[in-house]
Amino acid sequence: MSEAIDNRQIRLARRPNGLPERDDWRLTTESLRAADDGEVRVQIDYISLDPAMRGWMSAGKSYIEPVAIDDVMRAGTAGTVIDSRHPDFAAGDHVTGNLGVQTHAVAAGDELRKVDTTLADLPVYLGALGMPGMTAYFGTLEVGQLAAGDTVLVSAASGAVGALVGQIAKRYDCRVVGIAGGAAKCRYIVDELGFDAAIDYKSEDIAEAVGDRCPNGIDMFFDNVGGEILDVALANLRLHARVVVCGAISQYNVTGHIGDTGYAPQNYLSLLINRARMEGFIVFDFADRYPEAAQHMAGWLTNGEIAHREDIVSGFDNFPDAFLKLFSGENFGKLVLAVDS
Amino acid sequence: MSEAIDNRQIRLARRPNGLPERDDWRLTTESLRAADDGEVRVQIDYISLDPAMRGWMSAGKSYIEPVAIDDVMRAGTAGTVIDSRHPDFAAGDHVTGNLGVQTHAVAAGDELRKVDTTLADLPVYLGALGMPGMTAYFGTLEVGQLAAGDTVLVSAASGAVGALVGQIAKRYDCRVVGIAGGAAKCRYIVDELGFDAAIDYKSEDIAEAVGDRCPNGIDMFFDNVGGEILDVALANLRLHARVVVCGAISQYNVTGHIGDTGYAPQNYLSLLINRARMEGFIVFDFADRYPEAAQHMAGWLTNGEIAHREDIVSGFDNFPDAFLKLFSGENFGKLVLAVDS
Repeated sequence: MSEAIDNRQIRLARRPNGLPERDDWRLTTESLRAADDGEVRVQIDYISLDPAMRGWMSAGKSYIEPVAIDDVMRAGTAGTVIDSRHPDFAAGDHVTGNLGVQTHAVAAGDELRKVDTTLADLPVYLGALGMPGMTAYFGTLEVGQLAAGDTVLVSAASGAVGALVGQIAKRYDCRVVGIAGGAAKCRYIVDELGFDAAIDYKSEDIAEAVGDRCPNGIDMFFDNVGGEILDVALANLRLHARVVVCGAISQYNVTGHIGDTGYAPQNYLSLLINRARMEGFIVFDFADRYPEAAQHMAGWLTNGEIAHREDIVSGFDNFPDAFLKLFSGENFGKLVLAVDS
Repeated sequence: MSEAIDNRQIRLARRPNGLPERDDWRLTTESLRAADDGEVRVQIDYISLDPAMRGWMSAGKSYIEPVAIDDVMRAGTAGTVIDSRHPDFAAGDHVTGNLGVQTHAVAAGDELRKVDTTLADLPVYLGALGMPGMTAYFGTLEVGQLAAGDTVLVSAASGAVGALVGQIAKRYDCRVVGIAGGAAKCRYIVDELGFDAAIDYKSEDIAEAVGDRCPNGIDMFFDNVGGEILDVALANLRLHARVVVCGAISQYNVTGHIGDTGYAPQNYLSLLINRARMEGFIVFDFADRYPEAAQHMAGWLTNGEIAHREDIVSGFDNFPDAFLKLFSGENFGKLVLAVDS
């Protein structure tokens, strides 16, 4: 018979208007039930904090159903199997899955993926070897159709996805320029990640800086930010350029719905002049090819060709404040909440 | 010895600010010189009037050099060979080429294409069998990646390009909705061109009408117009939709430069939600495949599967007023100036 376990959960209390507030969620505690046949009980060790979660909090048409009011907040997680009634999992196995913002979960075996913590630490499976890694890989190589010699511009370049995009592009002999906020992040992407140049959006005029650091224009712009930065990139496209719309974190809190932005790109006709393409994508569409990407990413990580950095905030109760670091630009690397419960 | 011929020419006098005015051009008359070896003298019978010409009048970076001040205004033309010192051409041959807004020209043989006026009247080679035909063909099938069963929305649907886009899409078993101005054009695209439905932008609320006539959303939007219509289309995209940016006639006169628009698409993040693509193109990029497209278009025209309509304005001196019909929406079909000199 399994031991009694308290499961603490962050549930969506109401839909935020603009930037989320602490009271948009509420904390509940439930007793973790036993696993049925085919199920596994998991202790959640790390919770992934991602910009996309802001979109899931809002009602309205999007690429995925919004989190329902009173439901556990959706999130990617990594944890340890407590006990299992599924043949593929045993107590002590490390797993990832979208188990939500809670300290424990009962999950069907097919919701979980076993991961190898001798290859990389568990939080890395929420970053470079998780969704951000898959997003960077397919966004750059498939949607962005990266080609050797391209000039690549990346926004949120020190973030979970941007840092990987730039490093993947360097593996393909591209000139890579990253946009980040503050001197420390700019130094990091150049000195530690090998970007060719950085633009500090907090201290530089973006339009001038892009002209200066991409003097021959941009072949591929990987955008996580939207807003003015997108417009400047559009104005600097080269012939047959690709604009990969991965996210628009500057816009997510403007109206509360991802589709209604406060900023519209004035320079979209640059797409016509330059026969260029702007394309949105969602990493889930590439799910059947994750193994291919994971293998490449793991290879690059283990041989040291791609660096990664996690920004780990400790304490389950700190979820709201930790999550909001994404929107203030305070996080430095892939933001992860360590449950420590 | 060849006869003396007066060549009347429309030259660019100054760059327009907003909508062009008559005084932006000036009329000159020169004596047509004799042809050198490899050259052909042409009597220009028809001059193509196209929205793109507005862009060529403005300075600033674009896909082609602007027309220089005092140069003959650039334009596509169709005419008759007067005399030839090129082995491929003889007096009386019908030809097309970008010979500009003038009544006559001396052209190198390789600037000209011989056309068969037993297959179609000469003006048709400036429309369905000319650049608009090539634009519709490659824009729809290559850039737009048309697929059977798609819901296709076309703006400027009774215009030179739009009318062909819709008819090509009907050949591929698509549901086709056209946006045009006024009841006559709307009746024309449905009754004569076989579109499934029309939207009259002059009398209907565009957002309501698109929702009504594309209830399941849009798979491909072929845009010649830009502005609010583009935004409404973006808001109604389906998963994996394609937005083909062919032109933005509503915006060309806003600032005088094609890249600076008065209207920016608020709904561009629909590209992300729907994993959709917005792509600009210039038909010249497909020049090496024109023969393939011309053969298809000619086949559809001669077997009656695709209808075409030319709006022919007579009189060389009427060039400015005729050209401006494009921007007031007065033209009905492919706008052509008959020189009648």
